[in-house]
Amino acid sequence: MKLSLHDVKDLSLASQGKLKIEWAGQQMPVVQLIKARFSQEKPLKNITLGACLHVTAETANLMLALKAGGAKPVLCASNPLSTQDDVAAALVKYFKLPVFALHGENKQRYYQHINKVLDYQPQITMDDGADLISVLHSKRKQQLKNIIGSSEETTTGVIRLRAMEKDKSLKLPVIAVNDSATKHLFDNRYGTGQSTIDGILRATNILLAGKTFVVCGYGWCGRGIARRAKGMGSKVIITEINPVKALEASMDGFQIMPIQSAAKIGDIFVTATGNKKVIDYQHIKLMKSGAILANAGHFNVEINIQALKKAAQASRQIRTNLQEYMLGNKKIYLLAEGRLVNLAAAEGHPAEVMDLSFANQALAAEYLIKHQNQLDNKVYILPQKIDQRVARLKLRAGGFKIDQLTPAQKDYLSSWQMGT
Amino acid sequence: MKLSLHDVKDLSLASQGKLKIEWAGQQMPVVQLIKARFSQEKPLKNITLGACLHVTAETANLMLALKAGGAKPVLCASNPLSTQDDVAAALVKYFKLPVFALHGENKQRYYQHINKVLDYQPQITMDDGADLISVLHSKRKQQLKNIIGSSEETTTGVIRLRAMEKDKSLKLPVIAVNDSATKHLFDNRYGTGQSTIDGILRATNILLAGKTFVVCGYGWCGRGIARRAKGMGSKVIITEINPVKALEASMDGFQIMPIQSAAKIGDIFVTATGNKKVIDYQHIKLMKSGAILANAGHFNVEINIQALKKAAQASRQIRTNLQEYMLGNKKIYLLAEGRLVNLAAAEGHPAEVMDLSFANQALAAEYLIKHQNQLDNKVYILPQKIDQRVARLKLRAGGFKIDQLTPAQKDYLSSWQMGT
Amino acid sequence: MKLSLHDVKDLSLASQGKLKIEWAGQQMPVVQLIKARFSQEKPLKNITLGACLHVTAETANLMLALKAGGAKPVLCASNPLSTQDDVAAALVKYFKLPVFALHGENKQRYYQHINKVLDYQPQITMDDGADLISVLHSKRKQQLKNIIGSSEETTTGVIRLRAMEKDKSLKLPVIAVNDSATKHLFDNRYGTGQSTIDGILRATNILLAGKTFVVCGYGWCGRGIARRAKGMGSKVIITEINPVKALEASMDGFQIMPIQSAAKIGDIFVTATGNKKVIDYQHIKLMKSGAILANAGHFNVEINIQALKKAAQASRQIRTNLQEYMLGNKKIYLLAEGRLVNLAAAEGHPAEVMDLSFANQALAAEYLIKHQNQLDNKVYILPQKIDQRVARLKLRAGGFKIDQLTPAQKDYLSSWQMGT
Amino acid sequence: MKLSLHDVKDLSLASQGKLKIEWAGQQMPVVQLIKARFSQEKPLKNITLGACLHVTAETANLMLALKAGGAKPVLCASNPLSTQDDVAAALVKYFKLPVFALHGENKQRYYQHINKVLDYQPQITMDDGADLISVLHSKRKQQLKNIIGSSEETTTGVIRLRAMEKDKSLKLPVIAVNDSATKHLFDNRYGTGQSTIDGILRATNILLAGKTFVVCGYGWCGRGIARRAKGMGSKVIITEINPVKALEASMDGFQIMPIQSAAKIGDIFVTATGNKKVIDYQHIKLMKSGAILANAGHFNVEINIQALKKAAQASRQIRTNLQEYMLGNKKIYLLAEGRLVNLAAAEGHPAEVMDLSFANQALAAEYLIKHQNQLDNKVYILPQKIDQRVARLKLRAGGFKIDQLTPAQKDYLSSWQMGT
Repeated sequence: MKLSLHDVKDLSLASQGKLKIEWAGQQMPVVQLIKARFSQEKPLKNITLGACLHVTAETANLMLALKAGGAKPVLCASNPLSTQDDVAAALVKYFKLPVFALHGENKQRYYQHINKVLDYQPQITMDDGADLISVLHSKRKQQLKNIIGSSEETTTGVIRLRAMEKDKSLKLPVIAVNDSATKHLFDNRYGTGQSTIDGILRATNILLAGKTFVVCGYGWCGRGIARRAKGMGSKVIITEINPVKALEASMDGFQIMPIQSAAKIGDIFVTATGNKKVIDYQHIKLMKSGAILANAGHFNVEINIQALKKAAQASRQIRTNLQEYMLGNKKIYLLAEGRLVNLAAAEGHPAEVMDLSFANQALAAEYLIKHQNQLDNKVYILPQKIDQRVARLKLRAGGFKIDQLTPAQKDYLSSWQMGT
Repeated sequence: MKLSLHDVKDLSLASQGKLKIEWAGQQMPVVQLIKARFSQEKPLKNITLGACLHVTAETANLMLALKAGGAKPVLCASNPLSTQDDVAAALVKYFKLPVFALHGENKQRYYQHINKVLDYQPQITMDDGADLISVLHSKRKQQLKNIIGSSEETTTGVIRLRAMEKDKSLKLPVIAVNDSATKHLFDNRYGTGQSTIDGILRATNILLAGKTFVVCGYGWCGRGIARRAKGMGSKVIITEINPVKALEASMDGFQIMPIQSAAKIGDIFVTATGNKKVIDYQHIKLMKSGAILANAGHFNVEINIQALKKAAQASRQIRTNLQEYMLGNKKIYLLAEGRLVNLAAAEGHPAEVMDLSFANQALAAEYLIKHQNQLDNKVYILPQKIDQRVARLKLRAGGFKIDQLTPAQKDYLSSWQMGT
Repeated sequence: MKLSLHDVKDLSLASQGKLKIEWAGQQMPVVQLIKARFSQEKPLKNITLGACLHVTAETANLMLALKAGGAKPVLCASNPLSTQDDVAAALVKYFKLPVFALHGENKQRYYQHINKVLDYQPQITMDDGADLISVLHSKRKQQLKNIIGSSEETTTGVIRLRAMEKDKSLKLPVIAVNDSATKHLFDNRYGTGQSTIDGILRATNILLAGKTFVVCGYGWCGRGIARRAKGMGSKVIITEINPVKALEASMDGFQIMPIQSAAKIGDIFVTATGNKKVIDYQHIKLMKSGAILANAGHFNVEINIQALKKAAQASRQIRTNLQEYMLGNKKIYLLAEGRLVNLAAAEGHPAEVMDLSFANQALAAEYLIKHQNQLDNKVYILPQKIDQRVARLKLRAGGFKIDQLTPAQKDYLSSWQMGT
Repeated sequence: MKLSLHDVKDLSLASQGKLKIEWAGQQMPVVQLIKARFSQEKPLKNITLGACLHVTAETANLMLALKAGGAKPVLCASNPLSTQDDVAAALVKYFKLPVFALHGENKQRYYQHINKVLDYQPQITMDDGADLISVLHSKRKQQLKNIIGSSEETTTGVIRLRAMEKDKSLKLPVIAVNDSATKHLFDNRYGTGQSTIDGILRATNILLAGKTFVVCGYGWCGRGIARRAKGMGSKVIITEINPVKALEASMDGFQIMPIQSAAKIGDIFVTATGNKKVIDYQHIKLMKSGAILANAGHFNVEINIQALKKAAQASRQIRTNLQEYMLGNKKIYLLAEGRLVNLAAAEGHPAEVMDLSFANQALAAEYLIKHQNQLDNKVYILPQKIDQRVARLKLRAGGFKIDQLTPAQKDYLSSWQMGT
C-alpha cells in the first residue's frame, strides 16, 4: 500500500509554525532534557510511532523528542478543531514528519486521518481521548498484534480504556499517562484552568468579575477552572454527582447545587465532566437570555447541542467561536461549537504544562519498549520514580531548590517505635 | 476648509465591525438606557463633539448614544495600536460618522488625525490621555474659545490636566471622568486587571501559575492586575514609590521590593504607573533570560524601549505582539511594542466595564452643556449623585437588588446624640 | 474637687498586664520611634490629655508614648466590654496613670468613668466613638473652652462629629484620625477583618469553610471581614445600601442581595455598617436554626437585640460570648451581646495595626498643640505628609525597601507637554 | 485486677463540659444520625472499646454514639496538652465513662493512662497517633490476641502502622480511618488549616496580613494551613522534600525554597510534615529576632526544641502558650511547647470537621465487628461506599442537593465505543 505523506492545510504556513514550535520549546525544558538524552541513547530506534494528539506546537516538540530518540512518528489530530495548521505545515516541511490534520476537518476526514496513521503500521501508539485505539479495536483488529503498547493522555480516554479492560476487550497494554501525578495534577488543573478562561475571553471578551460562573464537574479540570474563574472575580457555582467532591467544592468556598437550579442564575456555564448531556435542553430552557455555554471536556457531548440547534428559531455567528441561538426572545451563546473551548478558542494548554505531560509521554514510550512482552493487556500507571524525576527536572529548570531528607529523618519515617 | 470625511483601513470590514458593536452594546445596558433617554430629550442637540478615544466597539456605542442625543460626533484614535479597523469601518459605513483611525498608524498620521477632528471645530471634546487637549493648547489655541468644555477618561490624562490647571495653562473646564467612582474603581481595576492578563496570554500563551509576576505601581490599575495575576496562580511582587500604597500591597499579601531587586527574579513585568522609565535599561540588564515585559500604562514610556532596542544585538518577531531581543545570550521579550498591552494584544476593557465609564462620559457631555458658562477653567469631578445613578442603573440591569435606608436609619446617621 | 485616682478591677493582675503591654509594644515599632522622639522633644509638656479609648495593651503603649512626650494622660474605656483588666491594672500600678475602666461595667459606671476623666480638666481629648466628646457637648459644656482640640479614632465617631459640624454644634477642632490613610485603610480592613474572624472562632469554634457568611456593609471594615471570611473558605454575601459599594462587592466576587434574602440562607451574620437595626427582628424571623449573629460595628445597635430578647422563649449561655435564644424550635446565637465581636470575644485589632492608628493619634495630639488657636471648630484630616511619614516608618521597621522617584520622573509627573 | 474508674482534673467542671459536648454535637449531624441508628441496631453490643484520642467535646460525641451502639468505651488522651478537662469531667459524671486524661499531664502519667485503658481488656481500640497500639505491641503483647481490630485517625499514625505492617510486626488488623476521603481531605485540610491559624492568633494576637508565613510540608495539613494563611493576607513560603508536592505548591502560587533559605526571611514558621527536626537549630540560628515557631504535626519533634532550650540564655512565658527564648539579643518565640498548636492553643478541629472523621471512626468499629476473623494483620481502608455515604449524610444535613447520574449517563461512562 502506498502511504500518504501528509494532509495539511497550507505548507506556506510552515515558517510561522516553526517559530511557534520554537517558542513552545523554550518553555518545555523537561522535554528538551529528555530529547538531549534520547539523542544520545536512541531508546526508540526504528520504532514507528502513531500519535493521535492535538496538533499543536507542544505536540510538535514531543514529536521532535521522539524522533531524536530514534522513532519514526506519524501524527494525526485528536480533535477536529484543535489543529494549528501552521504547526502541522512546519512538521511536514521542516521536520519531514507525516502529518494528517486540518483545523476544522469534518468527522469523515478526521477518521480518515486516523486510518492514514494506522496505515504506517505503528508499533507504539499515543492517544488523546482513545479514538485511535478505538479504531484499532473495532476496525483494524488485525494490526493489534503488532503493537507493543499504547499510551493515553486524558481522563476521558482512561475512563474508556478502563471500561475496555474491565470487559476484557482491551487487547494491548496501555500506559495511562493521565494518571501520573505530574500529568493530571498539573495539566488538568493549571492547564485547563487557565486555557479555559483564555478561550472564553478570546471568544467573548466579556468581563468575568461579578459574573455567576457555573462549572459542571469538580474533577481536576473542574477544580482548575473554578479556581481561575474565582481568581478573575466570578462567583462560582459547582454542580457534581459525586458527594465527596461536592462536599469538597463547598468547603473550598464554592456554592453547590444541581444544574437545574444553577441553570436559572448562571451567566457562564462550563462543562468538565467526561459525561454527556450534562447540560441538557431542559436546563437551557431555564437559562437567562445572554447565557454563555462552553465545554472543557474532551468530547462535544457534554452540552446537548443537537437539541439547542433544533429548538433555535435562528442562529448566527457573532464572533469567531461565538454562535448565537435565538430561543423565543432569549439569546443563548455557544462557544466553539461545544468543542474543547480551551483548544478551539484559545491555544490549549500552555507549553509549560504540556512539558510535564509530554515528558511523561516520552518516558512512557521508552518504558513500553523497555518492558516489551512483560506487560499484560491492562491499563498501567508509570512508576512513581518517573513521576518524581519529571518533577525534579522541572524544578531544576525553574531554578528552584527544595529540601532533602536527612538520614535521621529517613530513619524516623520508617520507624514506628517512637511516640509521644 | 474642506473637511475630511474619514480615514479608516478598509470599509469592507464594516459588517464585521457592526456585529462587534452589537455584541458590545448588548453588554452595555447603562449606555443603552442613557441612549434611550437622549433620543427623547436630545440634550446634545447640534453640538459638534470631537472625541479622541480608543476606537473600539464600546466607543462606538458611546458615539451612537451621543448621536442619539443630538450630537455630531467626530472620532479619532487615542492610541496608534488600539484601533479596531472593522469598528472604524462600521461607524463610517453604517452610522455615517467621520472617523480617523487606523490600527498601527504612525505618529505623524496619529497627530494628523487629531487635527482632522479639530478641523470640525468641536464644541465639546473627549480625551483619553489628553493628547487632543494638548494639541488644542499648543498648536490650535485659537479654537479654545469655542469650546464649552472637555472630558478626560484616564488617570494619566487627569494628571496632565491637573498639572496644566496648577500652572494656569488650562484654558477650558474639564470633567475628570476618570475620577468618578464608577469609572476608576471599576474600569481601572476590573477592566485593566482582566484585559492585561488577557493581552499577555494572547501574546505569549505562557502559563501564569507558578510564575513570578512583577507589577510596577499599585494604583487602581496595578491593584487590578496584581489581583488577577494572583488569581491565575502567579507569585506577585509589587514595586511602588508611595509608602502608603506599598504598605497596602504588603498587607494585601504581595511581596514588595524595589524594581532593582524584582528585576532579578521576575518572569513577567507589567508597568502601570503613569510614569516613565519605570523599567530602565539598568533593570533589564539584571533580568533572567526569557523575561517578558509589558506595559499597561497609557503611554509607551514606562519601559525604556529605546535603550532595549539600542542594546540588542538582534531582534525578531516571534508571535503577533511578541518581540524577542537578544542581549548577549539572554532573550528579553517585549509585548505590543510596550504599548498598552490590554488594548494592543487583547481587546481592551470588556464592554461591561466601559459601560460604566462611558455612561459617565455621556453624562459628562450633558453636564457640560447644562452648566455652560458656569464652569471655570478647572478640572471637575461629576457630582456623587451621577455616580450613584450610574451604579444603580447597572445593578438594575444585572437584576441585583440592594437595601434601602429606613427613615429611622437615615435619622440615626445624621444624629450625634446617641452613644454607647 | 478631689480627683479619683483609678477604678480598675484588680491591681494584682498588673504584672500579667505589663507583659501584655510589652508584647504589644514589640509589635508597635512606629509608636516606639515616636515615643523616642517625644522623650527628647517633649512636645506635649504639661498637657492633660483625656482619652476615652479601648483599654488594651496597644492603647497602653500609646499612653506611654504620650507620657514620654510630657503629657499627663487620663484614661477611660470607650466600650464596656473591651477593657483588658490586667492592662488597666498595669497602667495604674507600674506607670501611675489614672485609669477608669472595668471589663463588663454597666452603662452607668461607663459614663461615670467618662466623667471622672473629664474631672481632670483635659486640654486635649481622644475619642473612639465620640462618647467623651458627646458628654462634653451635652453635660459639661463649661469645659469646652479649655480644650485645645480632640481626636477621634473611628468611622462611627467621625460620622457623628461631621453631623455635629454640619449643624454647628461642634465646639472644638477635631482631628479625624480615622480618615488618615494609614488608619482607615489598615486598621479597619486588616485589623477588623482578622480580629472579627478571630472573635467568631473564639466564641464558637465553628468551621468557616463551606459556611454562608453574610457581611452587612461593604465599607472598609466590611471589605476586610468579607475578604478574610472568603480566605477562610466561606461563601460570602454582602448587603449594602450604597449602589457603588454594592457594585464593587459584586465585582469583587461576592454575592449581593438585600438582608431580607440573605437572612434565609446565611449561617453567620456580621454587621459593620455604623447604622442601627441593620438586622432587625423581621430578618431574624427568617433565619435558619443555628444562625449566628455578630456585630463588628462600633455600637451594639446594628442588630435589634432588644427585639430578639423579647421574642425569645428561653435563653442560655453556651460558651463565653455565645448566647442561645430559642424562638419556637429555632435556635439563634448571639455573640458578645452584640457588642464589637473582635474586641469582646477576641483581643481587638492586633498591635501591629494599632501601631499605625496610634502613631497617627500621637501625631494628632502634637499637631493640635502646634496649631493651637489656628484651627476652627471643624473636623480636620492630618496632612498627607504625616500619613506618608507613618507609612515610611512602618516599612523601615519591617525591613522593606521601596523605589524613589528619579528627578526625571518627578519632572515627567509635573509636566503635561509630552504625549503619544 | 481492680480497674481504675477515672483520672480527671476536676469533676466540678462537668456541667461546663456538658454544654461543650452539646454545642459540638449540634454541629455533628452525621455522628448524630449514626448514633440514632446505632441506638436501634446495637452493632457494638457488649464490646469494650479502648480509645486513645484527643479528649475533646467532639470525641465525647463519638464516645456517646459508640455507647449508644452498645459498646463500653474507655478513654484516655492521645496528647498531654489536648485534653479539655471539663469535657473529661462531664464524660465521667454525666455519662459514666471511664476517662483517664488531664490537661498538661506529664509523660509518665500519659503512658499510665494508656495502660489504665488497656487494663479494661478492650476488644476494639482506637488510636490517634498509634501510641496505644505501640504500647500493645511492645509492653502488653499478651493482650493482642483478644483484640478484634483497631482504627487509627492520623497520617502520622498510619505511617507508623504501615512501617509495622511492612516489617511484619503488626499483629492486628487496622482501619486507617485517616485514609478515607471524607477524613483526610477534610479534617487535615479544612480542620487543621483553620485551627492552626486560630491557635496562632490566640497564642500571639499578631497580625497575619503582610507577614511572611513559612509552612514546612505541603501534605493535606500543609496545604490547608498555607491556604488559610494566604487567606489571612500572609505571604506564604512552602518547604518540601517531595518534588511533585513542591511543584504543586509553586503552581498554587506559593514561593518554594529550602528551609535554610526560608529561615532567614520568615516571620512565622509552622511545621506539618510528620518528620523530625524539620526546623533544626541550624535554621533557628538564621532567623530574625521575633520569629514565631509552631508545630501542627502530630508529635512535638518537628522543631528541635531541645536544642533551642539548650542554646537559650534565658526564657520566659509571655502569654499562655507563648514562650520567649533569648539567643544573644535575638528573641525567638515558641508556641505551645512545640505541640500541636491547633489543639494546645486553640480547640482543635471544629466539630463539623470531626463529624466526618468520627462518622468514619464509628463506622470503622462497626466494620471491624462485622468482618471479625475475616481481616489479616494489615492496614485497611474503609470501602469507598462508606466514604460516599458519609459525604451524602453531610450534604443532606447541610440542606445541599446535588445531581444524580441519569441512566443514559451511567451507560455512557461504562462504554468505550463512542468517540469523536
